[in-house]
Amino acid sequence: MSAEDIKLDLTRRERLGFEEAMFCAHKSPAQIDAVLDQLAAAGQGSLLTRLEPEREAMLRAEHRARLDYDPVSRTAFYACTPAADGAPRVGIVTAGSSDVPVAREALRTLTYCGVPALPVFDVGVAGLWRLLERIEELRSLPVLVVAAGMDAALPSVIGGLYGGLVVAVPTSVGYGVAAGGQAALNAILASCASGIVTVNIDNGYGAACAALRALNHRA
Amino acid sequence: MSAEDIKLDLTRRERLGFEEAMFCAHKSPAQIDAVLDQLAAAGQGSLLTRLEPEREAMLRAEHRARLDYDPVSRTAFYACTPAADGAPRVGIVTAGSSDVPVAREALRTLTYCGVPALPVFDVGVAGLWRLLERIEELRSLPVLVVAAGMDAALPSVIGGLYGGLVVAVPTSVGYGVAAGGQAALNAILASCASGIVTVNIDNGYGAACAALRALNHRA
Amino acid sequence: MSAEDIKLDLTRRERLGFEEAMFCAHKSPAQIDAVLDQLAAAGQGSLLTRLEPEREAMLRAEHRARLDYDPVSRTAFYACTPAADGAPRVGIVTAGSSDVPVAREALRTLTYCGVPALPVFDVGVAGLWRLLERIEELRSLPVLVVAAGMDAALPSVIGGLYGGLVVAVPTSVGYGVAAGGQAALNAILASCASGIVTVNIDNGYGAACAALRALNHRA
Amino acid sequence: MSAEDIKLDLTRRERLGFEEAMFCAHKSPAQIDAVLDQLAAAGQGSLLTRLEPEREAMLRAEHRARLDYDPVSRTAFYACTPAADGAPRVGIVTAGSSDVPVAREALRTLTYCGVPALPVFDVGVAGLWRLLERIEELRSLPVLVVAAGMDAALPSVIGGLYGGLVVAVPTSVGYGVAAGGQAALNAILASCASGIVTVNIDNGYGAACAALRALNHRA
Amino acid sequence: MSAEDIKLDLTRRERLGFEEAMFCAHKSPAQIDAVLDQLAAAGQGSLLTRLEPEREAMLRAEHRARLDYDPVSRTAFYACTPAADGAPRVGIVTAGSSDVPVAREALRTLTYCGVPALPVFDVGVAGLWRLLERIEELRSLPVLVVAAGMDAALPSVIGGLYGGLVVAVPTSVGYGVAAGGQAALNAILASCASGIVTVNIDNGYGAACAALRALNHRA
Amino acid sequence: MSAEDIKLDLTRRERLGFEEAMFCAHKSPAQIDAVLDQLAAAGQGSLLTRLEPEREAMLRAEHRARLDYDPVSRTAFYACTPAADGAPRVGIVTAGSSDVPVAREALRTLTYCGVPALPVFDVGVAGLWRLLERIEELRSLPVLVVAAGMDAALPSVIGGLYGGLVVAVPTSVGYGVAAGGQAALNAILASCASGIVTVNIDNGYGAACAALRALNHRA
Amino acid sequence: MSAEDIKLDLTRRERLGFEEAMFCAHKSPAQIDAVLDQLAAAGQGSLLTRLEPEREAMLRAEHRARLDYDPVSRTAFYACTPAADGAPRVGIVTAGSSDVPVAREALRTLTYCGVPALPVFDVGVAGLWRLLERIEELRSLPVLVVAAGMDAALPSVIGGLYGGLVVAVPTSVGYGVAAGGQAALNAILASCASGIVTVNIDNGYGAACAALRALNHRA
Amino acid sequence: MSAEDIKLDLTRRERLGFEEAMFCAHKSPAQIDAVLDQLAAAGQGSLLTRLEPEREAMLRAEHRARLDYDPVSRTAFYACTPAADGAPRVGIVTAGSSDVPVAREALRTLTYCGVPALPVFDVGVAGLWRLLERIEELRSLPVLVVAAGMDAALPSVIGGLYGGLVVAVPTSVGYGVAAGGQAALNAILASCASGIVTVNIDNGYGAACAALRALNHRA
Repeated sequence: MSAEDIKLDLTRRERLGFEEAMFCAHKSPAQIDAVLDQLAAAGQGSLLTRLEPEREAMLRAEHRARLDYDPVSRTAFYACTPAADGAPRVGIVTAGSSDVPVAREALRTLTYCGVPALPVFDVGVAGLWRLLERIEELRSLPVLVVAAGMDAALPSVIGGLYGGLVVAVPTSVGYGVAAGGQAALNAILASCASGIVTVNIDNGYGAACAALRALNHRA
Repeated sequence: MSAEDIKLDLTRRERLGFEEAMFCAHKSPAQIDAVLDQLAAAGQGSLLTRLEPEREAMLRAEHRARLDYDPVSRTAFYACTPAADGAPRVGIVTAGSSDVPVAREALRTLTYCGVPALPVFDVGVAGLWRLLERIEELRSLPVLVVAAGMDAALPSVIGGLYGGLVVAVPTSVGYGVAAGGQAALNAILASCASGIVTVNIDNGYGAACAALRALNHRA
Repeated sequence: MSAEDIKLDLTRRERLGFEEAMFCAHKSPAQIDAVLDQLAAAGQGSLLTRLEPEREAMLRAEHRARLDYDPVSRTAFYACTPAADGAPRVGIVTAGSSDVPVAREALRTLTYCGVPALPVFDVGVAGLWRLLERIEELRSLPVLVVAAGMDAALPSVIGGLYGGLVVAVPTSVGYGVAAGGQAALNAILASCASGIVTVNIDNGYGAACAALRALNHRA
Repeated sequence: MSAEDIKLDLTRRERLGFEEAMFCAHKSPAQIDAVLDQLAAAGQGSLLTRLEPEREAMLRAEHRARLDYDPVSRTAFYACTPAADGAPRVGIVTAGSSDVPVAREALRTLTYCGVPALPVFDVGVAGLWRLLERIEELRSLPVLVVAAGMDAALPSVIGGLYGGLVVAVPTSVGYGVAAGGQAALNAILASCASGIVTVNIDNGYGAACAALRALNHRA
Repeated sequence: MSAEDIKLDLTRRERLGFEEAMFCAHKSPAQIDAVLDQLAAAGQGSLLTRLEPEREAMLRAEHRARLDYDPVSRTAFYACTPAADGAPRVGIVTAGSSDVPVAREALRTLTYCGVPALPVFDVGVAGLWRLLERIEELRSLPVLVVAAGMDAALPSVIGGLYGGLVVAVPTSVGYGVAAGGQAALNAILASCASGIVTVNIDNGYGAACAALRALNHRA
Repeated sequence: MSAEDIKLDLTRRERLGFEEAMFCAHKSPAQIDAVLDQLAAAGQGSLLTRLEPEREAMLRAEHRARLDYDPVSRTAFYACTPAADGAPRVGIVTAGSSDVPVAREALRTLTYCGVPALPVFDVGVAGLWRLLERIEELRSLPVLVVAAGMDAALPSVIGGLYGGLVVAVPTSVGYGVAAGGQAALNAILASCASGIVTVNIDNGYGAACAALRALNHRA
Repeated sequence: MSAEDIKLDLTRRERLGFEEAMFCAHKSPAQIDAVLDQLAAAGQGSLLTRLEPEREAMLRAEHRARLDYDPVSRTAFYACTPAADGAPRVGIVTAGSSDVPVAREALRTLTYCGVPALPVFDVGVAGLWRLLERIEELRSLPVLVVAAGMDAALPSVIGGLYGGLVVAVPTSVGYGVAAGGQAALNAILASCASGIVTVNIDNGYGAACAALRALNHRA
Repeated sequence: MSAEDIKLDLTRRERLGFEEAMFCAHKSPAQIDAVLDQLAAAGQGSLLTRLEPEREAMLRAEHRARLDYDPVSRTAFYACTPAADGAPRVGIVTAGSSDVPVAREALRTLTYCGVPALPVFDVGVAGLWRLLERIEELRSLPVLVVAAGMDAALPSVIGGLYGGLVVAVPTSVGYGVAAGGQAALNAILASCASGIVTVNIDNGYGAACAALRALNHRA
């Protein structure tokens, strides 16, 4: 694939209020290097998502030197050092510790866009007391991103206790009928709690963008 | 279909501890009448399940006179007047009021077999306080049948609060991705609470039989 | 089903900022009448959803007299006359005219909650000029509900042109592979536009609740 | 992932009568080491499930020294030496020899909880005499765990011959339409034998927990 | 649809050893009448399948007078009086009484082709003794057609006890995961008994044709 | 639904070379009448598709008088009398007589656009001689529309014998695994013959539009 | 897994007329060695199926010395040298060259049982002349095994030209909607040719067993 | 697999106007070498598709020397040097850069057949201006091949702006519900734009063949 096969959307921030991230899942190291070359030429930083450690390790040294890479979430900041200080505006909740990679993808995306977030991890409904301990803290935030796999019961329980926007992210955690996350996705869509919304399976980046969209018009 | 097409399993109680019920879903009124004739000839009563009001109304008058029919659960007792008195041994829980027909199928099956049960209806997790009010009462029972459709989050929450046998029954309540009950079934199978078991969608009869199996060996 | 099978969640508004609606899809006229009796006794109005004209016509006359019924959206206001005046705060967009019933369910839910909305119907991408004519008007609103069936390409196109919250509602409009709305749902979840969120198929009520959640914390 | 991402549920035994196991499938060796550190600090033993030999071999030496690891079932006892002596209280049955790993996961879970079990392996219905030879022995036990893949006909046949609780575990054994275990799961759910219950595909641990729940209230 | 839209395959018997049947499922009474007109003109009889009583009653009187119609199997012989005397050459077995309509479609097809068959109905594995009573009789026949819905365990058990050709017919009997017959079909395809073959769900006609194909080359 | 819910795309012919048809499947008679009113006001004719006889009979008399309605294909010409004379430019082929309604939808669409077509019906591969008799005639045409349900083997066979554009239309003809047409669709997509294209199940209208697109640029 | 986990069915030939084969897909080299030890002790040969070259190479040398291994079909004869001479009694047909591994599994199974077979490979319908050249030869045989992936149109065409038993084997050859063989399986089940039967995807062994069952009762 | 297992269709060009390509996906290097030997013996060149770099590297040196291999599209020209000069006759459009491999498979197929094509890559609807810049250029061409994964909204938008033949190719680009390309395929089949056609997922070769079929009859 040559450089002319790629058209960066450099005006997205102005149109939508947040920038295009570089989704690396289907790209070879050579392709990623080519896009980073373009970004470097344009003097622009970027967020990279779905960058596996194996492929990250194969990028050109000059590019790796400019990456702030997080292997858990498989995200990287390229040529920029984003910071998100101040009171959190979004809560990032997970049902189990296996959902943390997806939650961190959301967290890093918000950090990249300068929005501070509060992580509340491993509070699934099999031990309900863990959530009830934290619910008041969460109620003070306008948006929650809730990552859950398997039966994804957590967003429903949260939806009954909290009145702000709940962006549930089904995760591919599980096996058997839960493998791949479709069971979690359907449970969320069929939630008995009203007004819960969702994004694609494992799409922590998309959930963060939804939170950004919800915050966009706020003062 | 003539009488010789049907072979009643009249020794099931002796083998398994509970009798065969008559599953009416795929049978015409004429076929049901034919089986009732055989039962009458054998001097045996029976439980009928999945008998829609429309078909019940088309049975022969002599048979209808001997039916105790419940249109909500679509069950009937034929030629017998079962009673289940005493302290409840099984809890029958539903997430919503739309799950009641399935729950009542379980309840009537237990009544038919002489096992008293405690109904606790409409305590879904969107209003968690409804369940928490009743949980202590449920903890005193060795088996719970829990009917839930849509996201079926209730069995997971119960499974984290209660240590006896939980027989979840997914129901076909819902629409869109919940239509038909497959989403509820998968959520139950993928439950984050350990040791929850399940039966086919809408199978209140089967859940009651599972409770009977669990109670069979008890003193 | 008797009255004790139903537990109204009368404190939801206080917990979540919006009230429980009465989902009528799996309820018989007798059951709906029973709930309306309870509401009447509590002196409370309500929103009814998924009430088909056939069943509406079978409700008791005293209840029908207090219903403001809309057959297109199959919704009714019971014992209340909600109004939503002022500048619109939510846009309600549809791809085709067949998506209007779902869109109107969202619209009526917002009206019930006092939130004015702007309908922009029949602007699907097969005639792209129809959307482009209205996009500036939509950009002034913080939340859009976008109902689309078949290939559901509209939310993706809007997501690339608009930076606020996009709550897409897949509809069951279509046939063949589109029947039931699963193709539309998957297209939305897989959208190439970042941060689009979705709800269950045909769930106009849920989309409106999501908009209410997003507006809840606003000044 | 850091230690604060994990919240152990150390009071589960007291709530439910059995402890949380550590599900290792989605965890890296480093994450597993971190949890074992926490357990060591709390002076608590544990059961580990879904621990592949490759990952077991990468754990820290100090932890491996305290593991009793079984590669067939991919389970380990950490910092404890459970024993389950006495007359068996649960039967563990398999249809084929390929179902043994799942059956042993159930067996080891019961051993961990001190419940003796009787293994009866490779008695599938293609050679019916193998089951009939053992059925009397099985009838003396209150609960059977039955692992079967492919067409999963064995639980149905057992359900017709045995009156206690039958917890069927569909396995992912098979290929073509049987691949992944969904065909086995559906056959069990649709069983012509009444009152059979099931858990997720390959969930030997969950089946054992269900047996524990059923035994919990017994004298 | 006019007569020129239809091309009868009048030479099939000569090519294949059995004739084309008229599959009525998607045809209106007018279309069926048109085909019968063509057959009458050609002086040829026929077998009609999937002819519901409602449509049969709407055919022209002159055609109905020449039909031998069986409402259970929804088949008819047109303008012919087939007989199948002598020792049975095919066994027709069903698991339950609800599978009888499909079994009778097979039986009537064999009768139409002059092949005597032995019906053995309602011998499903939930009461295994019913099959074991008849198995010796079945062993004397070269081909068995076995109709079973739900979990379709019967063909697997028969396949382990009988060495001739087993043509299993999954039926759409059941509900929940069994609805439509896909679970039964998959269980048959995944059978642990070797060499079982199958046809489409509810395809009694096809199973009979398979038996005819197997008998075709015999002396 | 009021008139302002609908936006006719009156410039489609100019953009694409063919006009919008009115898809009636999800519209009530009142809605259809409203669109016809708009067309009448604009002095424009139209093609209506998916108009069931029951709904056609409920349209206003003044509109029915201007319809040329074909109940087999469920199509109507409104306020126009299209003719398509001359040598055929497209072949319309069906595998069975049950595929004719879909084929006629394609035929009527072509007629509406003035393109003559050649119908070749009921030439499925179970009687291969029927196709081979007509193949030379078909070879003279640049485009074939081939409607087939069930196993949809016909387009593959044609694709190996004919070098022009083959637009296959899977139909929902069949039962069991063929019900709904997904099996036919997949067989066409997986065709061993190269370069076959397809449209949605039963979409005769779309297949005709594809043929029009292919013919659009021709001299 | 120890030796007592395995129960060989050494009397199958006597019951069914053909022996159990050893299905190696889910077995480790150590488990396969253990079974071969048992067979050696019993002085019995065997057929091994689904034995990948990688695992075959890891068996103990003493066992490998007694294997006649075919890497294409992944089958082996253990401790026996079957021969199948004389006129062929079964035809083995494939649509493409990618279907040959499955076809050879059938061929080797027949050889193991002493039944000569005629291979006719790569005669798919995209080049129909290839089949027509061989059809007369095939017509002389009582049973055909037909392996086809992708759209599996070949069995339908053969079923219209040949009157004996057609055992179609769907193969997992293909990609996209054909991946895994489900499209091929459904096309076969929905075949427009009557009386075609099928087995699980890629089940060449099962197709051969079906042929053996059909030949079992012949003189 | 020996040489006699393969039957090249050397007369396809004459029958259909384009030659058979060699689909390498299920073939070992040895099998591919065997086919190339046959082609070399026949003095014929060929197009190879789905040839992964790993397998290409394992072919015999003499064959590799005669291959013009493109790793992006995984295609090779064997023993020929096709050129496609002149004004483009087909447009090849992609939604994203990840769709380029499929698009290049189409492009190389057209080049092999001497048809010049215009690539227009990375113009997905999330940045609509990218497509609008190129649409006039595309309108001058009679056929477009449009490759798109994820939600595949691009073909619908193009179908509303362009009146020639649109052959959409769904790609397997994406994750979660988009994984494997089924969501993209269904979105295309359900397109709101009329007359769009499609081929199997990732089938760039097939899309090019469809374009060739459409161009075949042109002057």
